Amino acid sequence: MRTPAQNAELALLLEVCGTPKPGNVDRRRDLEDLRFEHFLAGAVGAQDGLRMAGHGAAVGAAFERAVSGMAAQQGGNTQFGALLLLIPLVRAAREDLSQPVVESVVEETTVADAADFYRAFEHVDVFVDEPPEDLEALDVRRGADAIPTLEERGVTLYDVMEGSVPGDDVAREWVRGFERSFRAAESIANGSGPLPDRAAETFLALLAERLDTLVVKRHGEAVAKEVTERAADLHDHGAFETDRDAIEEFADELVDRGVNPGTTADVTAAGLFVALERGVVEL
Amino acid sequence: MRTPAQNAELALLLEVCGTPKPGNVDRRRDLEDLRFEHFLAGAVGAQDGLRMAGHGAAVGAAFERAVSGMAAQQGGNTQFGALLLLIPLVRAAREDLSQPVVESVVEETTVADAADFYRAFEHVDVFVDEPPEDLEALDVRRGADAIPTLEERGVTLYDVMEGSVPGDDVAREWVRGFERSFRAAESIANGSGPLPDRAAETFLALLAERLDTLVVKRHGEAVAKEVTERAADLHDHGAFETDRDAIEEFADELVDRGVNPGTTADVTAAGLFVALERGVVEL
Repeated sequence: MRTPAQNAELALLLEVCGTPKPGNVDRRRDLEDLRFEHFLAGAVGAQDGLRMAGHGAAVGAAFERAVSGMAAQQGGNTQFGALLLLIPLVRAAREDLSQPVVESVVEETTVADAADFYRAFEHVDVFVDEPPEDLEALDVRRGADAIPTLEERGVTLYDVMEGSVPGDDVAREWVRGFERSFRAAESIANGSGPLPDRAAETFLALLAERLDTLVVKRHGEAVAKEVTERAADLHDHGAFETDRDAIEEFADELVDRGVNPGTTADVTAAGLFVALERGVVEL
Repeated sequence: MRTPAQNAELALLLEVCGTPKPGNVDRRRDLEDLRFEHFLAGAVGAQDGLRMAGHGAAVGAAFERAVSGMAAQQGGNTQFGALLLLIPLVRAAREDLSQPVVESVVEETTVADAADFYRAFEHVDVFVDEPPEDLEALDVRRGADAIPTLEERGVTLYDVMEGSVPGDDVAREWVRGFERSFRAAESIANGSGPLPDRAAETFLALLAERLDTLVVKRHGEAVAKEVTERAADLHDHGAFETDRDAIEEFADELVDRGVNPGTTADVTAAGLFVALERGVVEL
């Protein structure tokens, strides 16, 4: 029997293993400076933070520890967004891994959790947008320097996430009861074949459904829209069953262009965790 | 900073990721019922036992726990031999990861360690030879039923390993001061390119050097000899640099024939751990 923390770590490993996952590192693809093994090391490094969450630690403290461990490899940011989904899910799994429970876990986060979230940005470079002018004091790139402002204004971690929607689909999961994560778990459970294949197929379905917010931030909405339309076309034609080569080509092309739908990968990892933890898939 | 237990888990993950590793599951190859993701789950499952060893638990107890967690996946035996090398190495790393220290760790094992080792066989099917007639009462396949005989005869885990040489090159590491494991670490450190590539190249060098004892047990000495001769030929010609395709073909052929040099993979994993833990490689 794996613990929730172990299932979360395994979800991170399975996510990077699923292939083809257009634009991202997968079992068949590396990026130039960010390779498969960095994700392996990131997942192993995250385990202390995941275990803290499994033991009931505060979301912010567990997240900061997980990020600090994840970042102890040379590839840079591998799983920041995925951990931001997994930590509250692991916390919820102590009691019951359901949408209402994870909703209360995130709604009950405090200013101290927000402070730890900001501290986590000091461990790793995360790609973020410029904040609106009135929120400049709360720019996450300030790291711990933003904490006095958080405290002054009484901003909780849930508030921070609420402020990041729209524009960040990891934050959106927080304020929408992890709806896509749970749906991804169902899609993985209903899939066929080995688990990493189901994860890759679910990744494509998720990418077909909404613009990837990391791609929007990095490359603009037009590119993100093009990516989603092409994913939708492949998904609608059942390319996973009938024309895997077309997905492989799309995957290679996005890697070549440096377009990495990282948010979609984060939600896929969350879906894998929910599926493993609920025991609806075998491994 | 990763702990020794985390480096050991990462070594298991990097080992399976290294490709081409002729005959074994690697980043590009699955066997029919034993797939890449089973090794990921095996590595995650082993972590409690590895952590116990890192905290100074007895070798037998830590090994049994690691095997029990490793076996909690549907693929069967993934990393039994590798864990039998890693557990004493992790124990040694608490003090100093050197050959003399790991030698004393294994020499100090007790009858209780032997009993836990036998218990570990109850968690998973491990491929072993028929024992000689006078050792039938100590056949590992008896599992815990052999414990009264172990106790009666005062057999320690080191004694068990000593009795398994020749014929088992994991046991040979125990009685030879982990000589090949430390040498594999040097080879990995001196290699070039990404760490999994270095591991794969070291795997080929190890396979070229001695018959794989798992291949001998399963397919006989003639097959093992043929495998080693072909590995030696590829290695001597520097095929890793000049003719990677020839190694890929050899890898596919061995997978098709069901010839899996598992002992060589175990030593490679041990070498990866030593290299990571000594900080002679970066990841």
